[in-house]
Amino acid sequence: MIPPRSISIPLPISFRSFTLLEDPMTDMTMAPGCLTGIRVLDLTQFEAGTSCTQVLAWLGADVAKVENPTAGDPGRRLGPNNKKDDPYFLNYNSNKRSITVNLKNPRGLEIVKDMAKKADIFMENFAPGAIERLGLGYDVLSKINPGIIYGQVKGFGEGSPYEKNLAFDMIAQACGGTMSITGEADRRPAKPGPTIGDTGTGVLMLVSILSALYQRKETGKGVHLQVAMQDAMLHYIRNSFGVTAKTGKAAPRAGAQSISGGNPPCNIYPCAPGGPNDYVYVYTSRGNPEHWPRLLEALGRKDLIGDPRFDTQEARVKHEAEIDAVITEFTSKRDKYECMRIIGAAVPSGAVRDTHELMHDPNFEERGIIQAIQHPTNGTFRMATWPVRFNHKVVPLKPAPLLGQHSDEVLKDWLGMDAGQVAALHTDKII
Amino acid sequence: MIPPRSISIPLPISFRSFTLLEDPMTDMTMAPGCLTGIRVLDLTQFEAGTSCTQVLAWLGADVAKVENPTAGDPGRRLGPNNKKDDPYFLNYNSNKRSITVNLKNPRGLEIVKDMAKKADIFMENFAPGAIERLGLGYDVLSKINPGIIYGQVKGFGEGSPYEKNLAFDMIAQACGGTMSITGEADRRPAKPGPTIGDTGTGVLMLVSILSALYQRKETGKGVHLQVAMQDAMLHYIRNSFGVTAKTGKAAPRAGAQSISGGNPPCNIYPCAPGGPNDYVYVYTSRGNPEHWPRLLEALGRKDLIGDPRFDTQEARVKHEAEIDAVITEFTSKRDKYECMRIIGAAVPSGAVRDTHELMHDPNFEERGIIQAIQHPTNGTFRMATWPVRFNHKVVPLKPAPLLGQHSDEVLKDWLGMDAGQVAALHTDKII
Repeated sequence: MIPPRSISIPLPISFRSFTLLEDPMTDMTMAPGCLTGIRVLDLTQFEAGTSCTQVLAWLGADVAKVENPTAGDPGRRLGPNNKKDDPYFLNYNSNKRSITVNLKNPRGLEIVKDMAKKADIFMENFAPGAIERLGLGYDVLSKINPGIIYGQVKGFGEGSPYEKNLAFDMIAQACGGTMSITGEADRRPAKPGPTIGDTGTGVLMLVSILSALYQRKETGKGVHLQVAMQDAMLHYIRNSFGVTAKTGKAAPRAGAQSISGGNPPCNIYPCAPGGPNDYVYVYTSRGNPEHWPRLLEALGRKDLIGDPRFDTQEARVKHEAEIDAVITEFTSKRDKYECMRIIGAAVPSGAVRDTHELMHDPNFEERGIIQAIQHPTNGTFRMATWPVRFNHKVVPLKPAPLLGQHSDEVLKDWLGMDAGQVAALHTDKII
Repeated sequence: MIPPRSISIPLPISFRSFTLLEDPMTDMTMAPGCLTGIRVLDLTQFEAGTSCTQVLAWLGADVAKVENPTAGDPGRRLGPNNKKDDPYFLNYNSNKRSITVNLKNPRGLEIVKDMAKKADIFMENFAPGAIERLGLGYDVLSKINPGIIYGQVKGFGEGSPYEKNLAFDMIAQACGGTMSITGEADRRPAKPGPTIGDTGTGVLMLVSILSALYQRKETGKGVHLQVAMQDAMLHYIRNSFGVTAKTGKAAPRAGAQSISGGNPPCNIYPCAPGGPNDYVYVYTSRGNPEHWPRLLEALGRKDLIGDPRFDTQEARVKHEAEIDAVITEFTSKRDKYECMRIIGAAVPSGAVRDTHELMHDPNFEERGIIQAIQHPTNGTFRMATWPVRFNHKVVPLKPAPLLGQHSDEVLKDWLGMDAGQVAALHTDKII
């Protein structure tokens, strides 16, 4: 297995300086159960599809993840020497049930079609043409179940010259424009670290599924939903399209700054002790002229209030380097949390936080945004939940299923099979 | 107004080389109407809130955008010298109706409360505490209308030490971890260009609203939904949390590569004629060992098939620089579209495309993914639609409303006012 690139970062001293709540909310979680009773036939793998059905499960749907009996979702084992389910798999498949079915076997295929009869939602993200070759295309399943909401994620859209091409997150981010606007101005494009190509696409499909589900309560009719990862990227770069609309040119890369051009300060500033993520963002909004004097006061530089070099937004654009020096003078002597505490009380400001800091931030755990779950083979595993609160509560997490963990119970629940029928399927290696 | 930073990029020769469809789809659009009859009382501004209600409008809801009569949504005018609605506003408010109401006037406030009685969904993203101070908090509106689905986007979550702080996209991206994993390994963090802090949060609220709407058909009950932009960022960086779970360290920045460590090649390669976005992504998946020989064949380097320097994934990790040289030898002599055409037919590959190329790509327009709309003051305006297809069709776009354009008709439709009542409100400067 390829070791991931990594940087060792010492925890800043103030890491645990978040105020603990006086009255800690002991149980922050409650299942909203919005989708109770909804059945999802889930043939997704990796991330663009699994991230979509993940949220359906969190919101209460019964998500039956159909996997091949040999190895299951390839996202379970990202490297050849991986013996346990990878964190990648755990992060996109919690609260689901796993059923193994051999789709190459006619009886296996029949089982999935029987499940399709009972399903409200079908979801897949195989390579282009694969699901249709399996005999589970929309034309087939919509005949079996006219009410089915059938979702497909592909790399490129129907009618694109590339519609038969494979895509992964990075390909979508290259072709969909997100890379062209990310990185430093004088250097080559960078890939946004967040997997917008995968999860960013999955969430748009999710919105469409939920809308179709709402409509189906009236019409009883299903729908064929398709989204391309390349097309989905356009949803997230509309500000940069706005820049192009105004300038007639490609939107630039702007480092840590805003592509649509916030006036200074709109940047990150170095903090003590100088680690790779020891920076604080400082921003003064164009819509709020009072931000600038407020910032000066927070920095202990009331002497600069009214200084003509900085007194208008136009002047601050001209004197950006001097503004940066004033702010850096303050930030470089303090850690990023102290900077955020002082500056953030006056103007929009935020410490640049890394994944280790976020995963181990006690405030996130108190608020239930990160939950520590117990996984049968991976032990304690911290993961992010659905971040939206329903009546002040967040969704509780259950560990991702082991391969085929729920084959028997899903066949009983969905298809009413008895123990003997299920045992026969095991014997015949169909499940 | 601050001129946006920009880079001038000549169009590559092959810009129009996409195959035109022989049988062009003359009408790619059809309103799916999923949310027909749903009323949205929209008090959003800028992007995190407007991006959410934008999609509700696209999916068929009647979105009444309530704006102050003086200047409306500050997103309309991003610079002091802006006379027309900014493209920023146009991109997040199409298909909505605008009604102006003075919320500081008791009669104005009463009108909004009357509208809340008729609304299915209420949405706002003012500064923390502002909506409650206006007297339109959840406690008030849920008494008037117990079925209301009430959504709020803030910068930081309830119970966070920063819950009273302001946030904008860049602050969320600093505090939410997306910046720490974006940029080059040996340099400071970069902000992902896509506005994940704003639109990425809005779309998670949207999912929650739609789920609650579905549930309400059974229960009749409303719900209070809250999401923090910082918390929302965690949803998009779960792969990097997976890296941290495995290494115990902060996930790194990886330039154009994958943070979770794809084996080489997994990078962008320079293409002719050498402009800032003349690169092509080339990737061979760990799950598909046949990708490597296929790539060599596409590059005309069958001579290297079986070469022990490259024959296993482990070997390719060791010889990454040589692999990069082999690929660059090919790509640097061709433009990025030719590279994508040849390499993408064999393995996952994609040209890095900029916003100007995407906005003017005839294939996007043919497929309805980008639509040219006519705006009364801005003229022809190209914008991206909802990228998910419903039964092969995309959502048609209507231009964003002028300030107060629909005040009269919304008051008639929602509250049954007659012409005289509406005229009196105009006279009293309440609307």
